[in-house]
Amino acid sequence: MKFKINREQFLKGLAIASRPTLAKSPIPIYSNLHLTLDETGLTLLGANSELAIKTHIPMRVNDLEVIRMFLPGETLISSKTLNESIRKMEGNEISVEIIDRTIAQISDGRTEYRLGAIDSKEYPDLDLTKNGTGFEMSTKEFIRLVDQTSFAASTKEQRPILTALNLSAEKGTLTAVATDSARLANKVVNLRDNVTFVANVSARIMGDIAKLLESLVGVETMEISASPNKVTFIFDNTLVVSRLVAGEYPPTRSIIPKTYQSFLQANANELLKAMDRVSILYAAEKDNIVKLSMSPENVVISARSTLSAETAKEEVPLCKYVGEPLDISFNYVLVASAIKAAQAEEVTIGFNGSNKPFSIRVAEDDSLVLIVTPIRT
Amino acid sequence: MKFKINREQFLKGLAIASRPTLAKSPIPIYSNLHLTLDETGLTLLGANSELAIKTHIPMRVNDLEVIRMFLPGETLISSKTLNESIRKMEGNEISVEIIDRTIAQISDGRTEYRLGAIDSKEYPDLDLTKNGTGFEMSTKEFIRLVDQTSFAASTKEQRPILTALNLSAEKGTLTAVATDSARLANKVVNLRDNVTFVANVSARIMGDIAKLLESLVGVETMEISASPNKVTFIFDNTLVVSRLVAGEYPPTRSIIPKTYQSFLQANANELLKAMDRVSILYAAEKDNIVKLSMSPENVVISARSTLSAETAKEEVPLCKYVGEPLDISFNYVLVASAIKAAQAEEVTIGFNGSNKPFSIRVAEDDSLVLIVTPIRT
Repeated sequence: MKFKINREQFLKGLAIASRPTLAKSPIPIYSNLHLTLDETGLTLLGANSELAIKTHIPMRVNDLEVIRMFLPGETLISSKTLNESIRKMEGNEISVEIIDRTIAQISDGRTEYRLGAIDSKEYPDLDLTKNGTGFEMSTKEFIRLVDQTSFAASTKEQRPILTALNLSAEKGTLTAVATDSARLANKVVNLRDNVTFVANVSARIMGDIAKLLESLVGVETMEISASPNKVTFIFDNTLVVSRLVAGEYPPTRSIIPKTYQSFLQANANELLKAMDRVSILYAAEKDNIVKLSMSPENVVISARSTLSAETAKEEVPLCKYVGEPLDISFNYVLVASAIKAAQAEEVTIGFNGSNKPFSIRVAEDDSLVLIVTPIRT
Repeated sequence: MKFKINREQFLKGLAIASRPTLAKSPIPIYSNLHLTLDETGLTLLGANSELAIKTHIPMRVNDLEVIRMFLPGETLISSKTLNESIRKMEGNEISVEIIDRTIAQISDGRTEYRLGAIDSKEYPDLDLTKNGTGFEMSTKEFIRLVDQTSFAASTKEQRPILTALNLSAEKGTLTAVATDSARLANKVVNLRDNVTFVANVSARIMGDIAKLLESLVGVETMEISASPNKVTFIFDNTLVVSRLVAGEYPPTRSIIPKTYQSFLQANANELLKAMDRVSILYAAEKDNIVKLSMSPENVVISARSTLSAETAKEEVPLCKYVGEPLDISFNYVLVASAIKAAQAEEVTIGFNGSNKPFSIRVAEDDSLVLIVTPIRT
C-alpha cells in the first residue's frame, strides 16, 4: 500500500473514524485504525466493542486531487500515533507507504516517521452492512433529540438497560426516552417515513454521534436504520454502526402526569442562576437539596447545609406561580440539567404536590417532557 | 462587625487574599479568611503554613465610596464559601453582618446567605511585619525573573532545598538560581539599591506570587525584603510573607561552562515544533530521549521508541551549527521547558561534547543561562 494524500482531507477523515479508538478498549487491536486503499479512495475504519465508524475519502473532492500515486492495499496503524503525526506535520501533502507489511513510513517531505504497521488480517471481522428499518432525519433535529434526552440516562452499570436511549418509531413519529429512575426525558419528533421499530442504543454513544455530527460542516441529513441487534447511521461518506443495549426497556408512559395541580412559569436562566447561588453550600455534600416555596405572591428558593446551620435563600425573579401554595424539595443538579436540556428561554413546571414527580416543559412545544422526582424532607 | 461594600472592590481583594487558602492545608483554620474592619477600611488576610497574604480595601478609592455603614470588628469566614457567594451574587453592593459572633449574614438585597463565622481569636498569630534588607524592583522584571527560573526547581521533596529559588543579592545585582540537578536556570538582574542577602524561597510560591502580580492591573513596582527566616513582598495595598526553605543551597557557579566547543543557533519556535513532532513516539515512555545530529551542513533531530522499532526524524530548519560534527541526546521535556523559559525568538546552544552539560542562552542577553545535562546513550 502506498499513496500521497492531501493532509487536510486526511485529518478530516481521521477525526471521524478515530472516535471509537479513543475509548480504552480491553481488546488491544481496537487501538488501531484500519486503512483500505482502492481505486475509489481511502477508507478509514475505527471501532471498539460497541461502536464502529467507517469513513471514505474519495480520490477527488470537486477540483481537488486528494489522493495520488497510489498502490492499493490494507493495513492497521496505531490510531493515536497516526493522528498525532498527521496533526503535527505541517506539509500540505502526506505520503504513506507500507514497507514489508510491518512498517508505515509517513512523511510530509520534512518529518519522516517509521511507525509500526500490522497486517489487516488481524482485525476482527465486523458486520458493517446496513439492514433493518430505515428512515431519514435532519442532523440538526437528531442532535437536538439526543441533547434533550441522553443526559437523563443512567451512567451506572447496575441496570444496563437504563444506560440506553430508548428509541421507538410508529405512525410517523419517533420517540426517544431516557431515565435513570430519578428523572426522565421524553422527546417526540415527526418522521417523513412511516416506520415501526424499537431500539435501545447506549446514551453515551448517541451523545458521541451527536458530537461528531456537530463537528461536521454541511451535513444536513442522515439515514438511520435499526435491526434487532444494531443501529446504523449513514451521512456524507460515513457509516456508523452501534450495537444495541440488551434487555427490555421499562414502561415509562404512565410516569408522565396527564394533569397538574399547579404551575410555575419561570425564566430558565434566572431560575438556573438562583439555584446555582443557593446551592454553593453543597460543595462537599451529597444530596444537593434545594427547596422551592411557591405561592401566587412570590417564589422563594432556599438551601440549608446538612453539615452546618448555613442557609441561603432568595426570591426568584421573572416567574409566576398559579395554584395552592406549595413547598417542594429536589436535587438541584437533576433539575438544572433538565432546564438546560429544555433549551428554551422560559420553562413551565407542572406540580402535583410535594411528593409527586413534577414535569418541566417548554411553552408552546409539546414534543419534550422532562420529569424529576422530588425529595421528601 | 457590620458593613456594606462595593462588590467589585470586595472581589478584587478576595482574589488577592484568598490565594493561600486555596492550597489544601493540614491546619483547618487556614481554610478561612481573616477579616478586620476599622476606620481605615477592610483588611483581608489569607494564609497557609508557608505563605500569608494580607490586602487592604480602603474606605474610598478616588471618588468611589467603597465601604459604608460600618461597625468595626474582626471575624473568620470560610474562604471558599465567601468567595463563591460574592462571585455569584449580582448586586453592586454587598452587606455583611456578623450576628452572635457565629453567623455571617451576607446579602446583595436579593440573595441572603447565613454562613458560619468563627471568632477571630482562633486564628494563628502570624508575624506579618516587614524586616530585613529591602529593595525595590519592577513587577514586570520580577515576573520575568520568576518565569525564567522557577520551572527548573525540583518538585520532589527528597531534597527540599532544591524546591527553592535561590535568591542572592550583592554589588547591585540580584541572582536567581533554580536546579533539580538535571537542569539549571541562572538569571541576573540589576538592582537600583546595593543590598546584600541570600534567601531560598519555594519556587512554587514564587510562581504563585508572579501569577498574582500578573493578574493585577497597574501595579508597577514592588518592595522585596529578606530576613533570615522570611521574605516579604509589598505592592499596592498588599503584603505577602513567605517563609524560607531551610538548608544551604548547593554551590552552582562551577556548573556554568565558561567556554564552549561548538554552537547551535536556532529559531526557538522551529526547534520546539521539531522536538514536539519527533517526540510523539514517547507518549507512554519514561526517558523522552531526542537526539540532535549536528554538522555545519545540517542539523537532524530524531527519536526512537525504546519499546518498538518506531522512529521519527527531520531536518531542523532555520538553524546554524558551528563546530565539529556532534551527536547529543537529551530529555526533550527539559530542553523544551528551557527554550520556552528563554522567551526569545532565537536561542544559542553551547556544547562541550556529547557527555557535557550544554547551555541555552539568548543572543545579546547575558542575564540568563539555562543548563541541561545530556543523556549518555
